[in-house]
Amino acid sequence: MAGKLHDAFIDELRDAYDAEKQLIKALPKMAKAATSPQLRGAFEAHLKETHGHVRRIEEVFESLDEAIRGKHCDGIAGIIEEGKSVMEEDVDDFTMDACLIAAGQRAEHYEIAAYGTLVAWARDMGHAEAADLLQETLDEEKAADAKLTSLAEGGINQQAADAAHAPISAV
Amino acid sequence: MAGKLHDAFIDELRDAYDAEKQLIKALPKMAKAATSPQLRGAFEAHLKETHGHVRRIEEVFESLDEAIRGKHCDGIAGIIEEGKSVMEEDVDDFTMDACLIAAGQRAEHYEIAAYGTLVAWARDMGHAEAADLLQETLDEEKAADAKLTSLAEGGINQQAADAAHAPISAV
Repeated sequence: MAGKLHDAFIDELRDAYDAEKQLIKALPKMAKAATSPQLRGAFEAHLKETHGHVRRIEEVFESLDEAIRGKHCDGIAGIIEEGKSVMEEDVDDFTMDACLIAAGQRAEHYEIAAYGTLVAWARDMGHAEAADLLQETLDEEKAADAKLTSLAEGGINQQAADAAHAPISAV
Repeated sequence: MAGKLHDAFIDELRDAYDAEKQLIKALPKMAKAATSPQLRGAFEAHLKETHGHVRRIEEVFESLDEAIRGKHCDGIAGIIEEGKSVMEEDVDDFTMDACLIAAGQRAEHYEIAAYGTLVAWARDMGHAEAADLLQETLDEEKAADAKLTSLAEGGINQQAADAAHAPISAV
């Protein structure tokens, strides 16, 4: 008997659960690498939210009588791997912050796509409670992405661009 | 001397160039795995656009007198790897289509984040021509994502959810 949407949903949920756990390990490193106190604060605030996302997924598993279990998420692993290479680059502080924002937004967008799918499937299958829980997380992922955009546009990118034109001694 | 935003920009461009080339190999497989003719058509149309994205990045490299070269993109590689596992699953046709949409939207969102960064950095550094070219691609990635959402909401997800409730003999 071929698998159904329910099985695919549980699979996606396990993928998201693992992705959140990978991010719990990665976010403190990104916060530490940030120079801008606002950016560091944004990563730290999102780390706290991420713990909440893990708990919400556990609630969804429980509401559907499914085992709480993750499944290695290759997508977020690749994105985190890219973030690690960024942190190893020898760049000026403004550029590092701009690169950390770029890496963070890739992770946010991965999650926006993942939770967008989970919410839609949960609603289509009539799991209203699960859909509401996952929607809360989706909203927080979108807000975290918007926060990173506002930090980039609020000065970090321009400072990095200006630093590129400054005489070497002034950087 | 520490690297500047220009170097980070060229690095991101090389990452995006490689990502597009990986997608050129992956999209035909996704089109082939789709049952819905509309979904297959959406993947095929996006494959054509993707060739245009590659050409636009080449134009950007040329406009900045930089070598046309890719750099392995771990992020999209992980997302494509997940897509491959999806295609190997034994699921009903509607669920497979719903899963292909989910995989496609992860790739689109990765690119939305990547091009969003590239456009912002190009503008901040005063590369107006490059910013315009990259914005065109960003708009097409967003449209491709919206198209997949409309196909999901236009019936594919609901058919998959209904199939899950149907008696086994009817599936």
